[in-house]
Amino acid sequence: MTLQERDKKHLWHPLTQHKLHPNHLAITKAKEALLFDDKGNEYIDGIASWYTCMYGHCNAYITSKVYAQMQQLDHVVFAGFTHEPAIKLSEELIKILPNNQEKLFFSDNGSTSVDIAIKMALQYHFNQGEKRGKIIALEGGFHGDTFGAMSVSGLSVYNGPFEDFFIDVARIQVPTKENFEIVKEQFIKLLSENNVAAFIYEPLVQGAAAMKMFDGRLLDELLAIAKQHNVLAIADEVMTGFGKTGKNFASEHLVNQPDIICLSKSLTAGLVPMAITSTTQNVYDAFLSDDIGKGFFHGHTYSANPTSCTAALAGIELLQSEEIQNSIQRIIKSHQTFDARIKNHPKVKETRQLGVIYALDLNVEMDRYGDLRYKLFRFFMENGVCLRPLGNTIYILAPYVITDKQLEKVYQAIEESLAII
Amino acid sequence: MTLQERDKKHLWHPLTQHKLHPNHLAITKAKEALLFDDKGNEYIDGIASWYTCMYGHCNAYITSKVYAQMQQLDHVVFAGFTHEPAIKLSEELIKILPNNQEKLFFSDNGSTSVDIAIKMALQYHFNQGEKRGKIIALEGGFHGDTFGAMSVSGLSVYNGPFEDFFIDVARIQVPTKENFEIVKEQFIKLLSENNVAAFIYEPLVQGAAAMKMFDGRLLDELLAIAKQHNVLAIADEVMTGFGKTGKNFASEHLVNQPDIICLSKSLTAGLVPMAITSTTQNVYDAFLSDDIGKGFFHGHTYSANPTSCTAALAGIELLQSEEIQNSIQRIIKSHQTFDARIKNHPKVKETRQLGVIYALDLNVEMDRYGDLRYKLFRFFMENGVCLRPLGNTIYILAPYVITDKQLEKVYQAIEESLAII
Repeated sequence: MTLQERDKKHLWHPLTQHKLHPNHLAITKAKEALLFDDKGNEYIDGIASWYTCMYGHCNAYITSKVYAQMQQLDHVVFAGFTHEPAIKLSEELIKILPNNQEKLFFSDNGSTSVDIAIKMALQYHFNQGEKRGKIIALEGGFHGDTFGAMSVSGLSVYNGPFEDFFIDVARIQVPTKENFEIVKEQFIKLLSENNVAAFIYEPLVQGAAAMKMFDGRLLDELLAIAKQHNVLAIADEVMTGFGKTGKNFASEHLVNQPDIICLSKSLTAGLVPMAITSTTQNVYDAFLSDDIGKGFFHGHTYSANPTSCTAALAGIELLQSEEIQNSIQRIIKSHQTFDARIKNHPKVKETRQLGVIYALDLNVEMDRYGDLRYKLFRFFMENGVCLRPLGNTIYILAPYVITDKQLEKVYQAIEESLAII
Repeated sequence: MTLQERDKKHLWHPLTQHKLHPNHLAITKAKEALLFDDKGNEYIDGIASWYTCMYGHCNAYITSKVYAQMQQLDHVVFAGFTHEPAIKLSEELIKILPNNQEKLFFSDNGSTSVDIAIKMALQYHFNQGEKRGKIIALEGGFHGDTFGAMSVSGLSVYNGPFEDFFIDVARIQVPTKENFEIVKEQFIKLLSENNVAAFIYEPLVQGAAAMKMFDGRLLDELLAIAKQHNVLAIADEVMTGFGKTGKNFASEHLVNQPDIICLSKSLTAGLVPMAITSTTQNVYDAFLSDDIGKGFFHGHTYSANPTSCTAALAGIELLQSEEIQNSIQRIIKSHQTFDARIKNHPKVKETRQLGVIYALDLNVEMDRYGDLRYKLFRFFMENGVCLRPLGNTIYILAPYVITDKQLEKVYQAIEESLAII
């Protein structure tokens, strides 16, 4: 039996209607920006395996560091105990996070980092005698699939069975020049009710909404208002973090810094799972008390797993290397040149770019999981490029180590795909 | 600065009131059943780092397999793609899971595996046109800290800030000979309302409730009744899984098998995070449809991460080895001998054992996070043994590779600790 056949026996894939899409391509190897299947075909990983493997697949620097750690200390309970990989990671990560960030709380995926951020925000107010129960979120935002994270996500694809169990969320439109006065007014009205605990947002780029980008100055104004009302700002940088927007974190494009930041995906360079919820001294201090119950009684078994911490630490070293920083600039320029060449194509409705994130909307209506989307996906794969359109949006978010030649192959595949729609 | 001092700058530990417990012992090395601190002291890991490192810390067989995998294929999106580590793991895990289990859905920690189980149960009924919104759970159960998992946990230590956002849960007492008729009646009454989606339980041992054990035959009766009402049974085997109860899974002690099983912790042998929610063909089939919306649109980026799958696969191989199976029997007998020697001590109120899990309750009243608990913890550490009492319960759940000599040292530390309370 082939791997694809064996796959069908016992595996239930995420985000998949198995009746309509029973076949899963078997990948057997990956190196730098390339994926290889079981028939020997190679594909450029144009989305860095969901924006994780940014320093290249199977990066030898990272894997050798991680192997050394696995032989030294694999794991230990992180309540009552600590270890050097977590300590070093905290020191290095705090150096590159926005200046106001001081404390790191660990978990294992982006969804849990968001559930933790929400719980922190609720308890922050509760510990100070205020029962604030509402969260404000942006329309079209995506923050994960656990109950808390799902509640604040405004990208309701198929939430029917669960929506009775969502936490209390007020949703505002993504601010634009056109709607800003209305959005601002609504935002202020919500805050004036004094029951808003936090405002959660993906800064500048809404990833799962199809790399929708919006004006940071407008978001900045909202953040300034939130601060006046002691409403905590939660930046979900699970997708945008670690260099993708041209700065280490998307929040650096803004003046007002978040109280809480959610991190995962390329945090561990695509090697192993881990997530972090980082926050300020002010938030942390609200949990310090002689009353034990004011502590944050949340915990995951693999919190600050030394293996994962080591992968993260090696990733951060690479991120700051001249080689990767130069590569980021190279990709940014390359995307700009490609944009000039494609943006006026009649089948292209709109293009946008922030850092190494490039997206173009097609001049067609498409369902998020519609047939054309799968047709395009297959076309790209047949042309040796792994791109996964979201609705009518084609986007590129490749590993930083992608070569110029590989980038050109991705661009050509996109140009040629316009002929089949 | 020492590691302990550096730890305080930027790390927020789980389940910790930092004002009362600011110091975290720095562990620098682990091997087999031992932990080593930065001063060169060694400790027997009597709880296998929260029941994860069951095959011994830094197990060379597992780490070498994982290192090979990291160099071959680190990660790839698990929607539309598949890979051998996930396929092989599914084949080997299904072989040892209860017979009715057929499909595996991946996530990254025990909490998310429970959120997924709950979402599966809700949508299972929803897809068949029934809106069943209630979950039944056991008092004192613990299932994790994300919003869904926290909702079904009956171990409400400090849930004040969050309880307004819990999903709809009805709680029943853990069945005992004394209360069983009342519990059964209440259970049947709840089910007769036709709005119960699932019944979640830790089979036979409630871990975080302090290794509370209960009669499987009574649970079995409840499971038979649940089945008659098409209420899905969710067994949370995050703690009990992979040999700890003397069988591969605690559910094997029962006649009625669960529809859904949650797995994590020792699934990946303590090396890296991963979780699995396994289920039956019947549950899986309820999501198959030409209607894409009936699929399970839940997904985590690191789903079925090849590195983690490889750790799990190596762990399952070891679990089934003669060496580990013999070791499990050796520890079971050793605990029985220790029990005979300590159970009549005046300071011991009750002892209990299932498989390699051994617990004793002290004849004193103690808060879950009270002072005596920390005094005992320090006493054990000073005697070279890492045990973390839960309330007035001292329990042992050591790696299967613990030696007889190390076991004896653990027992002696427990005996000596009775003098200080």
